[in-house]
Amino acid sequence: MKLASLKGGRDGQLILVSRDLKSAVHVGQLVPNLQTALDDWSHYEPQLQALYQQLNTGELSGAFAFDPRACSSPLPRAYQWADGSAYVNHVELVRRARGAEVPESFYQDPLMYQGGSDSFIGPCDDIPLGSEAWGIDFEGEVAVITDDVPMGTTAQQAGQHIKLLMLVNDVSLRGLIPSELQKGFGFFVSKPSSVFSPVAVTPDELEDAWQDYKVHLPLKVDFNNEPFGRADAGKDMTFDFAELVSHAAKTRPLGAGAIVGSGTVSNKQPVNAESAIHNGGIGYSCIAEVRMIETIYSGKPSTPFMRYGDRVRIEMRNARNESIFGAIDQQVVSYCE
Amino acid sequence: MKLASLKGGRDGQLILVSRDLKSAVHVGQLVPNLQTALDDWSHYEPQLQALYQQLNTGELSGAFAFDPRACSSPLPRAYQWADGSAYVNHVELVRRARGAEVPESFYQDPLMYQGGSDSFIGPCDDIPLGSEAWGIDFEGEVAVITDDVPMGTTAQQAGQHIKLLMLVNDVSLRGLIPSELQKGFGFFVSKPSSVFSPVAVTPDELEDAWQDYKVHLPLKVDFNNEPFGRADAGKDMTFDFAELVSHAAKTRPLGAGAIVGSGTVSNKQPVNAESAIHNGGIGYSCIAEVRMIETIYSGKPSTPFMRYGDRVRIEMRNARNESIFGAIDQQVVSYCE
Repeated sequence: MKLASLKGGRDGQLILVSRDLKSAVHVGQLVPNLQTALDDWSHYEPQLQALYQQLNTGELSGAFAFDPRACSSPLPRAYQWADGSAYVNHVELVRRARGAEVPESFYQDPLMYQGGSDSFIGPCDDIPLGSEAWGIDFEGEVAVITDDVPMGTTAQQAGQHIKLLMLVNDVSLRGLIPSELQKGFGFFVSKPSSVFSPVAVTPDELEDAWQDYKVHLPLKVDFNNEPFGRADAGKDMTFDFAELVSHAAKTRPLGAGAIVGSGTVSNKQPVNAESAIHNGGIGYSCIAEVRMIETIYSGKPSTPFMRYGDRVRIEMRNARNESIFGAIDQQVVSYCE
Repeated sequence: MKLASLKGGRDGQLILVSRDLKSAVHVGQLVPNLQTALDDWSHYEPQLQALYQQLNTGELSGAFAFDPRACSSPLPRAYQWADGSAYVNHVELVRRARGAEVPESFYQDPLMYQGGSDSFIGPCDDIPLGSEAWGIDFEGEVAVITDDVPMGTTAQQAGQHIKLLMLVNDVSLRGLIPSELQKGFGFFVSKPSSVFSPVAVTPDELEDAWQDYKVHLPLKVDFNNEPFGRADAGKDMTFDFAELVSHAAKTRPLGAGAIVGSGTVSNKQPVNAESAIHNGGIGYSCIAEVRMIETIYSGKPSTPFMRYGDRVRIEMRNARNESIFGAIDQQVVSYCE
């Protein structure tokens, strides 16, 4: 099942989107928005699934052409957004670029930061930011949405709480990270509003690609209309989504609609220029990663961060080359107060 | 105006509470819950204020005795909870206890961490936690709730966005903080669900004590029924609430209902045993602070963290000794899955 939220009101207007992303139908007569559906998922999910089957077979009246540009993030605002860093290869590159070791514990105890969740940006909307000097970067990720997860839920139990999946652009301000981390209070101002794919999908939409609570498909990241990253989200993921959800619930429960992210998708590959797609590599899901690789093999980074007008596109396609989540497709613009 | 949320449903049932905290009245016929009221505050606030005047003069039918134990936190769940550390004296003690300096920038650039906001605990409810070895501590704080705050709002503009105030118990797990901070991703698992006072109040309820976007009253913290802290929330606050809100909105907007906290209230006083209330001092708003003072003057901490069954009570009274927010009054208990 595919769900999206048309812009309108603080929580959007829930629509069902056909499997081929071509048509959609309002379901406001059943449930007004995605948060309300998630608040009572076992009640709404079967009814939404029944409508979804009818939408796909063309039996449903009232269907209209689906336009991702009319969408907010599936949850325009949420109560919980916790983002892991499950691809430890990315962390290894961060550390190696500054000559530090990766502690052994990073392979047993997930890295996770608390994100802000009150002001997500729509999937095709501009990202307004106050300064190019902030070191603007995208991060291509996968995320899950859960129902209520009790505190202390084990990784073995956590998988059953995963109800939906999305893609993420975890916008990051690399220039502000060092001073924030020096304070010891986390990323805070260096993590502005995040962006999610037009469509959230139930795990069955991934078919065989959803295995062991990982998504075994490449994440397509294009930067300014050029292929930039094709890392496989199922490879080199040190912690699967069940483990990430369990970690997020270690010392507190998670409320229905909690979003838990994977962190930047990153695969192991040669730490040199051959890692770039145009040189036959699988590329990168964020600019920081190529800059770290450049630093390691040439002493300094050469790829600049995003400038106003730069575009990023993040999408995932199945084995039949069909888009699963629709595409995050947006540019960075100057914010004028 | 004083507002509270009776338990019931995920977002509680909004009630108005009389100025003396003795009676209350349902306002569900006007607006079902506090988040909905904050989503359109300029519309609801005058109508709620009119009902509040009638409640205080006894003109309103349907009033009932107010019981804080029947309340959830005013916002049982929220979209944004950002907590500062505005009393830099507290940070100075943290650093001094481990022999480190406070960077000069800490006096210009606020410390703030992103909190989780999907599962707040009620003001008189138990705090269930998985292990006493986690180093369980309370933190007595003040917090504000805002309406929509545009990105880039200056400190000069931010004050007008402050609509309500509350007290906070920012529950902290001191034993988990070092390993979380070592990861560089913030406090995450070391900050479990927070707790807010039974009642949220409009700034006018503070009368003259609300000056310069600070609350000039002592925060009464009792630990196991003994006075533990009486620090003045208006003193030694390096950043006022307007500055904290502005900082929180530096790189993103804040959505209506955003909660921004002060951090542990802490006043400068002699760094020795005279700081304790039973020795004539003003005490502490968290256990960590007395342990740091003990470390500085005696080489090691001697006050233990909370054990199961330990109680904390956090309240603020005005010059007439009237409770403003009601009291957070709760014990820590063992969490059984």
